[in-house]
Amino acid sequence: MMARRIALLQVDPTVGDLDGNRTRLEALCAIADKAGADVAVATELAISGYPPRDLLLSEGFANRCLAACSGIETALPLLVGAPLPPKTEREKAGNGILRVLPEGEVRELTRKQLLPTYEVFDEARYFTPDSRPGIGRDIGGLSLGLTICEDAWQHSGETPSDYDSDPIMQLCAWQDQGESLDATVNLSASPYHATKPEQRAEVVKAAAASLGHPFLLANQVGGNDDLLFDGRSLAAWPDGTTIEAPAWQEGVLIIDLDQPSRSFWLPWDEGVDYALSTNDLFNAVCAGLADYCRKSNLTKVVIGLSGGIDSALTAAVASSALGSENVIGVSMPSRHSSDHSIRDAESLAESLGIEYQQRPLEDLHQAAETALEDELEMGDPIAAENLQARLRGMIIMGIANARRAMALATGNKSELAQGYCTLYGDMAGGYAPLGDLYKTEVYQLAEAFNQEAGKELIPRNSIVKPPSAELAPDQKDEDTLPPYSLLDEILRSHIEQGMSSQQIAAKGIDEEVVDEVISRLVRNEHKRWQMPPAPRVSSRAFGQGWRLPMAARRNDQSM
Amino acid sequence: MMARRIALLQVDPTVGDLDGNRTRLEALCAIADKAGADVAVATELAISGYPPRDLLLSEGFANRCLAACSGIETALPLLVGAPLPPKTEREKAGNGILRVLPEGEVRELTRKQLLPTYEVFDEARYFTPDSRPGIGRDIGGLSLGLTICEDAWQHSGETPSDYDSDPIMQLCAWQDQGESLDATVNLSASPYHATKPEQRAEVVKAAAASLGHPFLLANQVGGNDDLLFDGRSLAAWPDGTTIEAPAWQEGVLIIDLDQPSRSFWLPWDEGVDYALSTNDLFNAVCAGLADYCRKSNLTKVVIGLSGGIDSALTAAVASSALGSENVIGVSMPSRHSSDHSIRDAESLAESLGIEYQQRPLEDLHQAAETALEDELEMGDPIAAENLQARLRGMIIMGIANARRAMALATGNKSELAQGYCTLYGDMAGGYAPLGDLYKTEVYQLAEAFNQEAGKELIPRNSIVKPPSAELAPDQKDEDTLPPYSLLDEILRSHIEQGMSSQQIAAKGIDEEVVDEVISRLVRNEHKRWQMPPAPRVSSRAFGQGWRLPMAARRNDQSM
Repeated sequence: MMARRIALLQVDPTVGDLDGNRTRLEALCAIADKAGADVAVATELAISGYPPRDLLLSEGFANRCLAACSGIETALPLLVGAPLPPKTEREKAGNGILRVLPEGEVRELTRKQLLPTYEVFDEARYFTPDSRPGIGRDIGGLSLGLTICEDAWQHSGETPSDYDSDPIMQLCAWQDQGESLDATVNLSASPYHATKPEQRAEVVKAAAASLGHPFLLANQVGGNDDLLFDGRSLAAWPDGTTIEAPAWQEGVLIIDLDQPSRSFWLPWDEGVDYALSTNDLFNAVCAGLADYCRKSNLTKVVIGLSGGIDSALTAAVASSALGSENVIGVSMPSRHSSDHSIRDAESLAESLGIEYQQRPLEDLHQAAETALEDELEMGDPIAAENLQARLRGMIIMGIANARRAMALATGNKSELAQGYCTLYGDMAGGYAPLGDLYKTEVYQLAEAFNQEAGKELIPRNSIVKPPSAELAPDQKDEDTLPPYSLLDEILRSHIEQGMSSQQIAAKGIDEEVVDEVISRLVRNEHKRWQMPPAPRVSSRAFGQGWRLPMAARRNDQSM
Repeated sequence: MMARRIALLQVDPTVGDLDGNRTRLEALCAIADKAGADVAVATELAISGYPPRDLLLSEGFANRCLAACSGIETALPLLVGAPLPPKTEREKAGNGILRVLPEGEVRELTRKQLLPTYEVFDEARYFTPDSRPGIGRDIGGLSLGLTICEDAWQHSGETPSDYDSDPIMQLCAWQDQGESLDATVNLSASPYHATKPEQRAEVVKAAAASLGHPFLLANQVGGNDDLLFDGRSLAAWPDGTTIEAPAWQEGVLIIDLDQPSRSFWLPWDEGVDYALSTNDLFNAVCAGLADYCRKSNLTKVVIGLSGGIDSALTAAVASSALGSENVIGVSMPSRHSSDHSIRDAESLAESLGIEYQQRPLEDLHQAAETALEDELEMGDPIAAENLQARLRGMIIMGIANARRAMALATGNKSELAQGYCTLYGDMAGGYAPLGDLYKTEVYQLAEAFNQEAGKELIPRNSIVKPPSAELAPDQKDEDTLPPYSLLDEILRSHIEQGMSSQQIAAKGIDEEVVDEVISRLVRNEHKRWQMPPAPRVSSRAFGQGWRLPMAARRNDQSM
């Protein structure tokens, strides 16, 4: 018997770049063909990139995707995810699978049945669900069950939604009725968060066990805006064996249906590779930034260096993701900056090997104070604190504009959650690499970064000193916020696990502290509406996945 | 026969303020009772306010809403919209109707069947749909068909979605089977846009005609964040007669089922009243701003006055919405400002009677240039232009913070669409009153404002002079953009009607111009991700209702 081989194309498409995505798919198909695969399986909506969002509402977009697919040159049959035109005038588009044959024939095989509409997913907004299981007969000699991402998740109960149907059980029923399937494939765009790889493994194992044949999942890799995909395409066999592709890089996972151990991974030399370190979360954050810049045709970034841990880790991430030659670090000491802050910023820049500028703020600060003298004298002292942060934001943006670079915001999820940041000040920038990392994770990544480097690239002092915004004399974060370990526990419980104040307090945390934290979280929602995109690395990030209505009892406008 | 009267409660709830919303409903119930109504009908999700968004995902939120409803003191039976707890663990909440009796008994009657998930609506994200028609028997002696907003829209085809079921036809079928209904009510949170009132009239007329009895729609009024509701609760009879409540104010519409002409409107003295002028769009914009401020406990706003039409209309709107004593206008002339700009700003402030500050920019501008001298000299000239805009943004924010006021961004939809604006500069602020108005609408409203005042409160010169950002010598908007009448036609065709470049060019517009406009629109999407909330007055606004993925071919970062 000849080996039966399926190639999973782990691709990093750019949303909306149909030609570019076609080219990437062709390159991966060529690798698959050379490796002797019978059929290549790409990811969900691979031709448009995921998530296409409101592009799907543009006149003719699905037809342009179809045309792009029919232009794919491939030497072996390809299953590719694509938006499909609505079936009737008032219906929405379909999230489907096209079969592309070497002769160029393109044919629709199926449309997605289960449309996730929670957290980062909005699929009910764009798609009409199908109601029939997908079957593809005689594709490269194989008969395949066809599913698209969420279609497989109801079966293992690993989704927060409850759907009326279970496409895996539908396929089982077809098999019971005599349909013979060699394997079932799943075209996915399954975003990353820390516990996702385990969940995904459960999903494919449960499906393979129920179906009694191999279950293969091809997953998107890379970043599109704020969504991150880790790749890790994988296959499971009914006996529980699994084979998983590496994370954070493009390539092809060749699955041998009959001998799992003869499966192998082929990286694509010209593809992206963001497997930069041994730390998965660090790679995730780097992948988000690197892909955001690559897809936006941006090369350089500008970062304000305060000497603190956040800007230090941001610079470390940027250096890893973009190359230290593409990072400009700017220290902007003010009258409230401690000597060690300036030294720490300087030593960080030196050890990372990035361009370093020092632009003392005092003259500009005085000019701004003069311009606003009367208001600052009689007004809320928050105005003076914010003034410094905004002057820095303006300088960073000025350099970014002058260099045609992008400013990076350095804020983390803990401070953004509490509004402990300044709109148009430290929140200024096109992307916030740490925006979905809790402060305690920022510390962990800084330590991991130094450990991997084998030296203290991030100065020890930036890691150990008490966090301070340095916007007023002797200011410390803990004057305003609870200690970060406590703050993060409260935030995680509330944001990720949906726990109420009462439930959190029942864990033994001071109720007053909990209430203060939650109330600050709600009151500062208005800031998060104007937050730059941040890579989503936790199960519930701010923004689409976690947005309160602002009118829900906001009464604080100290932006 | 006694008069059969139903009271439609046109209420302006604050999202998340359950106690406050309960109090408002009690006041309106008292008015309804005094007027001799048999039953009071509130709006969709009246107890939580619409849209509650991710509050619905908070542990126990639906139960807190239930508790608030059971606390409503009313002397007549009340039907009130409320989020209802999920029926099973993995199900989502229901968007339902509760019956509250004078004795305090609360009972669930039905849940919404059709969940709009397009444009500003995201209901599939939060709710599980019901599948049965709603019937309420013997409520204040009446038997009523029960529907919730979208439930009635499939019937007249006035929704872009196509649903499998039609709740109006379901009720017709029940009647055919012998169910006797006095009327059908619809609890709505139906947002405003210019053509919405006509559409709503079509919906109620079609339903009344099919059902053969009166069809009554109670609509929310006021603003919640960026969503605006115009009220205009209404009833239709099978013969086509309709009765409509006023827009932009709270009150009770008493509908006499048997004698339409004996129906009447009772305004609520203590409720909101944003029917400020004879111009509906002007009222809409004012309602958005006024309610945003009221619900956020904000009193004062700060506006940068350039002497141009946008800031002039923003100030006019703010004066009308908040009172001229609560508006601070700041002129910040720079070396590029023309004399007439300063004069026009001053004369506007004087005629509106608002606080006026003049803060010349030159000293600060020079200090900023010195701080960035090397970068500005060799860099992209856009950096220098943005610098001025950002200095102004900083001053406005400084005054806002000092006074505990909110800065208003003055941008309009046309320039935001084209990215002809500066992030953290003129885009700075907590709310953008003109953010969903095309430039041509800005002109129309300015003219209408002056006409209603009977004098040129907005200086004629601000209206007639060629628009200029005044960020470089002799700069005019038309150096960069097509004339606004043309630009707006292209934008409207693309954004509101979803037309492709080809389709727009086929209307006889220069293809090159169309391509340039659309490409600028796409390239500048990144700015709109950080745009302050703006009242949605057109059918497709930016943000939730119109968001492209940024990675879709963006390559311009001149923020």
